[in-house]
Amino acid sequence: MSNQEVPYKIYLTEDEMPKSWYNLRADMKNKPAPLMNPGTHKPMTAEELGQVFCAELVQQELDDTTPFIEIPDEIRNFYKMYRPSPLVRAYCLEEKLQTPAKIYYKFEGNNTSGSHKLNSAIAQAYYAKKQGLKGVTTETGAGQWGTALSMACAYLGLDCKVYMVKVSYEQKPFRREVMRTYGASVVPSPSETTEVGKKILAEHPGTTGSLGCAISEAVEVAVKNPGYRYVLGSVLNQVLLHQSVIGLEAKTALDKYGIKPDIIIGCAGGGSNLGGLIAPFMGEKLRGEADYRIIAVEPASCPSFTRGTFAYDFCDTGMICPLAKMYTLGSSFIPSANHAGGLRFHGMSTTLSQLYHDGYMEATSVEQTSVFEAAEMFARIEGILPAPESSHAIRVAIDEALKCKETGEEKTIVFGLTGTGYFDLVAYQKYNDGEMSDYIPTDEEIAASVAKLPKID
Amino acid sequence: MSNQEVPYKIYLTEDEMPKSWYNLRADMKNKPAPLMNPGTHKPMTAEELGQVFCAELVQQELDDTTPFIEIPDEIRNFYKMYRPSPLVRAYCLEEKLQTPAKIYYKFEGNNTSGSHKLNSAIAQAYYAKKQGLKGVTTETGAGQWGTALSMACAYLGLDCKVYMVKVSYEQKPFRREVMRTYGASVVPSPSETTEVGKKILAEHPGTTGSLGCAISEAVEVAVKNPGYRYVLGSVLNQVLLHQSVIGLEAKTALDKYGIKPDIIIGCAGGGSNLGGLIAPFMGEKLRGEADYRIIAVEPASCPSFTRGTFAYDFCDTGMICPLAKMYTLGSSFIPSANHAGGLRFHGMSTTLSQLYHDGYMEATSVEQTSVFEAAEMFARIEGILPAPESSHAIRVAIDEALKCKETGEEKTIVFGLTGTGYFDLVAYQKYNDGEMSDYIPTDEEIAASVAKLPKID
Repeated sequence: MSNQEVPYKIYLTEDEMPKSWYNLRADMKNKPAPLMNPGTHKPMTAEELGQVFCAELVQQELDDTTPFIEIPDEIRNFYKMYRPSPLVRAYCLEEKLQTPAKIYYKFEGNNTSGSHKLNSAIAQAYYAKKQGLKGVTTETGAGQWGTALSMACAYLGLDCKVYMVKVSYEQKPFRREVMRTYGASVVPSPSETTEVGKKILAEHPGTTGSLGCAISEAVEVAVKNPGYRYVLGSVLNQVLLHQSVIGLEAKTALDKYGIKPDIIIGCAGGGSNLGGLIAPFMGEKLRGEADYRIIAVEPASCPSFTRGTFAYDFCDTGMICPLAKMYTLGSSFIPSANHAGGLRFHGMSTTLSQLYHDGYMEATSVEQTSVFEAAEMFARIEGILPAPESSHAIRVAIDEALKCKETGEEKTIVFGLTGTGYFDLVAYQKYNDGEMSDYIPTDEEIAASVAKLPKID
Repeated sequence: MSNQEVPYKIYLTEDEMPKSWYNLRADMKNKPAPLMNPGTHKPMTAEELGQVFCAELVQQELDDTTPFIEIPDEIRNFYKMYRPSPLVRAYCLEEKLQTPAKIYYKFEGNNTSGSHKLNSAIAQAYYAKKQGLKGVTTETGAGQWGTALSMACAYLGLDCKVYMVKVSYEQKPFRREVMRTYGASVVPSPSETTEVGKKILAEHPGTTGSLGCAISEAVEVAVKNPGYRYVLGSVLNQVLLHQSVIGLEAKTALDKYGIKPDIIIGCAGGGSNLGGLIAPFMGEKLRGEADYRIIAVEPASCPSFTRGTFAYDFCDTGMICPLAKMYTLGSSFIPSANHAGGLRFHGMSTTLSQLYHDGYMEATSVEQTSVFEAAEMFARIEGILPAPESSHAIRVAIDEALKCKETGEEKTIVFGLTGTGYFDLVAYQKYNDGEMSDYIPTDEEIAASVAKLPKID
């Protein structure tokens, strides 16, 4: 079918939505290294993980052999409220850039959480409900994950406790109000509601909190309260599994029009969107059925792939979670205060880390002023105000399209537009006022936090 | 076709999108009364209107006989960036209400302006561009219209000056930043940039502004600056014409599944959404081809239809615009300060006013706490955080569905979900905190502003 016939937005029918998630690990020869008990340095068992996570999610976390896992009907029905998401042909952007490249983006922002996070939130909430739990706990930084989880819990009638990093709680009152509207209880972290929170408040009075501390509080509450478990919105294998719905839909849409992408681009923080978007394409690559250039884009201010170390590390700064083997800047690494938006996790999905280590994908880093420049251009041309996170992928997609303009190559570029920037206008204001700056950590700074990696024999 | 087969979301293909707008006035026996020159009390001529509005838009404003007006390709291409919009079957809401009613909503919020306003913004900006103008001016209150116009102007490379009511400018900094991101200049009104602004500031130092004042400033700038015209986001016939795309798409989607609605519900401020949604259905009703219950929903705090007078009145509180014959509370009427959200216009579209006067539609008013109760319920069940304006329609749709539960009738209800509430979280917070109250104006208050209606012989 000729590209002339491709509409602005390719929508699948609800029947064409995937009926199973795709478990990329099943096709990996070198499996991602297992999560490790930080005390014993042995792989975490299902029993150990089950104290923190729901039983069925633990199975998904540990299963690296089953290629397809059926999506329960209840989750598919929820998906139908906001999915299938459109695969958009960026005709206007192509014209503006005067590029021979063909640019597509998979847009995950058309739901109230404003991002792809809802794909995993509903799955995790569903399994918690199925297990007969009362509720779940989690942490949230910028608030996308907390909002998504609140929506999923409201739908299922599950209690939802969100520990929100105090500085975000205060600076993003609207994110907080969305979560409250969805019935979640939102607690600024650190708080007096947990032992770890009290300890941190005693040691650091006036602290504005951190994601690591919020994780510690959420985990403590989940472990101490019968009928509760902890859930996490990125990094984990289970999350990448649920997010494969992004890539599966994108691939079906492309196949419908006989389009084969040359380059697939996604932003990378913990890896949930990137892992989901690339899943079926990477699967073909692993099985030797097709080849694609796959590019992870991360902020220059938090460059885990491009400047991190591939080693076992804590997933949280509080060092209470299991160890994961991943590209990491060290769990004590904190991005510069001028960094806007998400993608501030020090580590990376173990699955993506292994694939990167094995040469199946590339990574690049970009500075935030150039990211916001791309974001504003995209907003004006394509009509969608993108999330700062998503705009990392936009930046590199534009750069690749401009390279095609130079070489005359008609490459097909697909990128993930993970969400909208409606709750990021403080950052846009900074950019509009010319007050945004860049910061690239020095080698010494990275070496200092990497030096604190746990010693594993 | 059985309703069993109706998907959660009915999407048209881009080919099925309307190629013409539908001009409801062509099918009206009693045409809406013409706009009147406030000085001469004679109908405004094309020449007079052309000093303020673009030439082609003046033609559309005055044309009450041509039933279909072709949508230029450039506008259709822009529409394709965010249209067709889905007609959603509210399966989850139906189940929650345990109603035999079938509920559908046409969702116009999946674009960055967050509402249906973009449908007319791109049309008005397009004709300004076609006329070779440099730019357009407008006013905005809550900010949806200003955002939509900014987006349209950014796309076409047109200058955009927005006069934003000062209180909104200060209380809704994020709306302002979205407009700035789209390249608009946003001026808090009243301002020192216009004669009328200076005069008002001198007379009322420290005023936080009003929509009427912002209109006056925007009109002054348009008239005084060569290459500029003024544009307006509601009330006008041209706006209802452009917004007919909502109803035309909805009707095509329903027809595809053989569905005939019994009740069509829309919120009503100036009438842009309601007039657009009902257009083709009302057309059938006017031609005697079908019958529908059509319900306009307005805030109890600003009840133009249900408690206003059908008479000639100014469209602006500054009394510089033409007179329109409409249901009005008087141009000096200002809703109570505790009223959240839009729908605060004292008057109503002349077209809808005539239709209401002639008995072709009903109107009802609802109080805002019950509106936010419906909004929160809808958000939790259907996964979309609705705009306060749209939630007026949700409230009445739920009430009608509950009546069906009592009577056992399987009515089909269609309502307009005009937009999202992402920029209305101050109001949601008030509701969440139990601090929202209702206010219904007294008969005396309404009589006082109606007494100031202009005297027309």
